[in-house]
Amino acid sequence: MRIDPWGSELAVDLGKLFEEFGLKGIDEGIKKRLGADSRLIARELLIAHRDLELFLAAAEKGKEIAVMSGIKPSGDFHLGSKLTADELIFYQKKFGAKVFYAIADLEAYADNGLSLEESKKNAISNVADLLALGLDAKNAYIYRQSQERRVMAAAHIYGARTTMATLKAIYGERSPALYMSVLLQVGDILLPQHKDFGGPKQVLVPVGLDQDPHMRFARDIAFKEGLMLPASTYHVQMKSLKGETKMSKRDPMGMLTLSDDEETAAKKLKSVFTGGRNTAEEQHKLGGEIQKCVFYEICKYHFIEDEKKLSQMKQECVSGKLLCGECKAKHITEILGWLKTHQAKKKKMMKKAQEIVEAGEK
Amino acid sequence: MRIDPWGSELAVDLGKLFEEFGLKGIDEGIKKRLGADSRLIARELLIAHRDLELFLAAAEKGKEIAVMSGIKPSGDFHLGSKLTADELIFYQKKFGAKVFYAIADLEAYADNGLSLEESKKNAISNVADLLALGLDAKNAYIYRQSQERRVMAAAHIYGARTTMATLKAIYGERSPALYMSVLLQVGDILLPQHKDFGGPKQVLVPVGLDQDPHMRFARDIAFKEGLMLPASTYHVQMKSLKGETKMSKRDPMGMLTLSDDEETAAKKLKSVFTGGRNTAEEQHKLGGEIQKCVFYEICKYHFIEDEKKLSQMKQECVSGKLLCGECKAKHITEILGWLKTHQAKKKKMMKKAQEIVEAGEK
Repeated sequence: MRIDPWGSELAVDLGKLFEEFGLKGIDEGIKKRLGADSRLIARELLIAHRDLELFLAAAEKGKEIAVMSGIKPSGDFHLGSKLTADELIFYQKKFGAKVFYAIADLEAYADNGLSLEESKKNAISNVADLLALGLDAKNAYIYRQSQERRVMAAAHIYGARTTMATLKAIYGERSPALYMSVLLQVGDILLPQHKDFGGPKQVLVPVGLDQDPHMRFARDIAFKEGLMLPASTYHVQMKSLKGETKMSKRDPMGMLTLSDDEETAAKKLKSVFTGGRNTAEEQHKLGGEIQKCVFYEICKYHFIEDEKKLSQMKQECVSGKLLCGECKAKHITEILGWLKTHQAKKKKMMKKAQEIVEAGEK
Repeated sequence: MRIDPWGSELAVDLGKLFEEFGLKGIDEGIKKRLGADSRLIARELLIAHRDLELFLAAAEKGKEIAVMSGIKPSGDFHLGSKLTADELIFYQKKFGAKVFYAIADLEAYADNGLSLEESKKNAISNVADLLALGLDAKNAYIYRQSQERRVMAAAHIYGARTTMATLKAIYGERSPALYMSVLLQVGDILLPQHKDFGGPKQVLVPVGLDQDPHMRFARDIAFKEGLMLPASTYHVQMKSLKGETKMSKRDPMGMLTLSDDEETAAKKLKSVFTGGRNTAEEQHKLGGEIQKCVFYEICKYHFIEDEKKLSQMKQECVSGKLLCGECKAKHITEILGWLKTHQAKKKKMMKKAQEIVEAGEK
């Protein structure tokens, strides 16, 4: 089975991922160790993991640990980027993990033709979002790929640790730029184990399921380099507001971003795909199909903190009490309020974000 | 026709290079402009060029110009490396060209499995040779690839400007590491035109004929990037001391290095391949086959400065007056003396070389 990390498909055959590639489900032990009342667990954000136990064991023993992820700075922070950021911040707060955050500007060039200067502008905005979400910059290393020579050099070194046949087997026939992006990503994933950062350690990489090929490839290289194999968690994929595909910057109207102004956000949320029935009558009778509702997912994964309020929302849907329009009207204010508060926090973080992003230029 | 830049073959079909790839010969105009009595011309070191006129025109108009080359730091400076170095120094002295010199440690890793630390040691020695040969470090930029983020970032950017089909057409089926080395080399070749170095300018790249694929590829990328197409000169290839292949670090006994001690150098020179006949009698009668003689080439390209002395050497060979052993005995002292003087100069340059090589670490 080959998974396309660059595609827009939502469906990933989970059974095969477990069977062929050794992913594991989130069992009771893991739930307890992460905290049953943490949002990750309580809101079922995690689907699977690989070697999370090893990471947790190191964390619990007080060893130096790191979490690593990143963003392609091709636009505003959307709910998918937030999902990853929330997870990083969770591990930073709960286990004291150092956060490594790669701003993949070279990949943005290769994949989207975005100049490094444009990427830099987006990066500052993205980092301000990250800080506003609660990342502690003092226990983090945030960098742009194009400024981080350890990562770029590693991409070349790792290029010598693989073959075209391996790259083709994992990723299919791709362009030189895409193969090089993959090697850069491995450089990102293994950077926390660089001697400048204290050498080999347990590193956890929170990703979407579609990114698993990168993890397998990075583990293969880590093994060859005598490093510890990075662990990974797989979170749910944010659906496009239109419902069919994953949320992606390639479809601006399909994503809610943390920078959307009130009017835009309200407009997007009013037209978001729900689990509504064909008629009001039918819906009152059968209830909404909540498993299809992107609005509910957004509230569950991001905006409604209160457990009671969320169960009420669910109950009012499946019982047929509220129609989709009524449900939205009831909850939209909370989302818009959250965005407003976030944007105010973010504004205060812009200067610091700029300093962080420009630090690499020295 | 495909040329293998990594092979050890000496023969390159010059006719095809001229015809298919537009190389030009060294005509009277070029000879005059470079100086008929310069070693490049007087000793027939140059075989061909591409756009050298454009470079010379810019030089003659007093425009800012650069020459660029480099070395794979996988061992000692040998006579092939010296040939390129001499040419760089010539353009620096005669036209005030700024010298860019890439120490290809990432390529040394990809191609030879050499660690960056080992490469660094060799690099210091190589740079000391370069300085001892007369390079003015004040008008030069010497760097290791692994420390030069502009070059590494460029390799990724240029990766997005090409296709696997193009890479295969030029270089054949290669490993990811080798394709990446090629993109790094293009990064090296185009670095003098980076905005940090004053932007687009005429750049000349002295290479061996076997390196022409890199030049064609670099020109293609330069065109796409809106840069000036780098010019190139093609010098003779130093033959292995054994005569059959090109001088290469892959065969230590086939190369004379600038670090060989007197005993080693003498031993190598005594067994160097010459144009001797089967018997002394035959040689006295027919003369030596000087066109095959590596010892003569070495003297002509590197060690005998005096024109008269060189013609006498030639005359005593082809006339059959001296046998090869006698000829070697006559001239070997001059070579060993040159090496001794060079090594003394080099020793004094080691500290400066170390500073230059380590400057990139900051």
